[in-house]
Amino acid sequence: MTHVLVTGGAGYIGSHACKALKAAGYTPVTFDNLVTGWQDAVKFGPFEQGALSDRARLDEVFATYKPVAVMHFAALSQVGEAMSQPGLYWRNNVEGSLTLVEAAVAAGCLNFVFSSTCATYGEHDNVVLDEDTSQIPLNAYGASKRAVENILRDFGAAYGLNHVIFRYFNVAGADPEGEVGEHHRPETHLIPVMLEAIDGKRPALTIHGSDYDTPDGTCIRDYVHVMDLVDAHVLGLKWLEEGKGSRVFNLGTGTGFSVREVIDASRAVTNREVPHSEGPRRAGDATKLVSGSSRAAGELGWTPHRSTMPQMIADAWQWHLHGHYDH
Amino acid sequence: MTHVLVTGGAGYIGSHACKALKAAGYTPVTFDNLVTGWQDAVKFGPFEQGALSDRARLDEVFATYKPVAVMHFAALSQVGEAMSQPGLYWRNNVEGSLTLVEAAVAAGCLNFVFSSTCATYGEHDNVVLDEDTSQIPLNAYGASKRAVENILRDFGAAYGLNHVIFRYFNVAGADPEGEVGEHHRPETHLIPVMLEAIDGKRPALTIHGSDYDTPDGTCIRDYVHVMDLVDAHVLGLKWLEEGKGSRVFNLGTGTGFSVREVIDASRAVTNREVPHSEGPRRAGDATKLVSGSSRAAGELGWTPHRSTMPQMIADAWQWHLHGHYDH
Repeated sequence: MTHVLVTGGAGYIGSHACKALKAAGYTPVTFDNLVTGWQDAVKFGPFEQGALSDRARLDEVFATYKPVAVMHFAALSQVGEAMSQPGLYWRNNVEGSLTLVEAAVAAGCLNFVFSSTCATYGEHDNVVLDEDTSQIPLNAYGASKRAVENILRDFGAAYGLNHVIFRYFNVAGADPEGEVGEHHRPETHLIPVMLEAIDGKRPALTIHGSDYDTPDGTCIRDYVHVMDLVDAHVLGLKWLEEGKGSRVFNLGTGTGFSVREVIDASRAVTNREVPHSEGPRRAGDATKLVSGSSRAAGELGWTPHRSTMPQMIADAWQWHLHGHYDH
Repeated sequence: MTHVLVTGGAGYIGSHACKALKAAGYTPVTFDNLVTGWQDAVKFGPFEQGALSDRARLDEVFATYKPVAVMHFAALSQVGEAMSQPGLYWRNNVEGSLTLVEAAVAAGCLNFVFSSTCATYGEHDNVVLDEDTSQIPLNAYGASKRAVENILRDFGAAYGLNHVIFRYFNVAGADPEGEVGEHHRPETHLIPVMLEAIDGKRPALTIHGSDYDTPDGTCIRDYVHVMDLVDAHVLGLKWLEEGKGSRVFNLGTGTGFSVREVIDASRAVTNREVPHSEGPRRAGDATKLVSGSSRAAGELGWTPHRSTMPQMIADAWQWHLHGHYDH
């Protein structure tokens, strides 16, 4: 069996990646501390509970499975929390990743796929973002992810660690077969929050700022379906296995949707009203984040199939109605 | 007594800062692990040996002295070492600084002066660097310093940690009174290496690359006298004590010298030949790093008095001939 170590494999994106890896013939080994992940989401390979800060535990897992690659999803990822508790982000995301990278190099596992984010770019007015755009993150979440990108570059130069860095735009949707889906505690992502509001599971959606310099005043984001996103990860893994070297790829569709446009689309898909109110801006949010890159399409051969707004909302809505995790 | 906690106070710049702090009426408390520092250099206030990674030890020192501010110099700072052992830089410089910042906030010590570097800017062709230049560091040393800048910004936003960040260009010279000076193990800074070569204490100076796109093919740097540099730190401390808030300042003179120009100046000052040879480029070096900022002059009222090349070399030469540390 060809093992791939998947940190954060019990989380939203990691669990979908495990499904895609299994479908592609790999055996995903989930390494997760279950702080934000769900044991119920681990369905496609072995589970090893542990923390990234525990080097001995990591060494043990590398020795047991001899993975051909690491896919590193585990991270704290809430901008609000990052603003109020930055130390948590620097410790967990940066120090934890450093320990993982050191363990991978020590184990001779030199293929590494990393979940980064468009939040590393920060604010760039009226610019579509490609991989060469300056990275000036606005918050500790983006700064911690950029720091890990730097660590990978530094370990690439020093030890030959080959790495593919994916900078995600907004990830949405769920496995259309309903095996895995999105469930955060607390939920902060726009679409699931909206669906909970539609369903009366929370009072109303708050729009964080309606005075941005955009056509309707709300922030604009580029949304990508989680199934398309994890397809790119399998392509990234093959890229590394073929010895093509280290590379950064944006993962977005190049189309931006404002918060109000996502609300309108949710109303159309669910045929239900979306209770919402307007609140102040949230510190650390950029006005507009849209990918302007065709690199993943051109070099990896990545084609997003499900990343239309109605499809993403429909798949998220099916999961919202029928899927759940207990543990 | 008004204490200031000086991490790395037993090192080159930290020891000069302690002298300047004492002259300005403060009592510097040196906190240093003596890995690269010298106990002999601690002459101007109490010494507390310890590591930044030791949170309990830091808490104890904050409780004992109740410093009004931290000046944080302690760091590993060799580009070559950073390229070959990046993990060391991420652990020492970033994780160590994070622990220090957390301890400072916990102790209610909310004034923080940080030693950063022009190496955070990276390569910018034909551009003089000001504080708003994009920071795209080329090596783990620069990346680790930029990460600490981000940590300070994040802790500033979350906890009101007021910080002055100084981005040093090349620091040179020594205390003209000979109390403290520059002594690294190994020595990698251009001027002291040159003086050792002049004095026969090392075979010859190697010029790391003579095919750069500069008038004489060698790298260009902006040099600032250590006594002027530490004057800026005292001004930065006062800036914080006056409640002027967080700010970044370049510390350089705006004049660039190529390696060959520094060799020529050393020959003129010492009246001795400078044995040297030409070697390949060193990974991680930028072609030209010159400050294009007048912010420190305009806002802090900083005036470098001793930062002429002949004066810096003369002061370094006096220290080379007459100064030394045993421990």
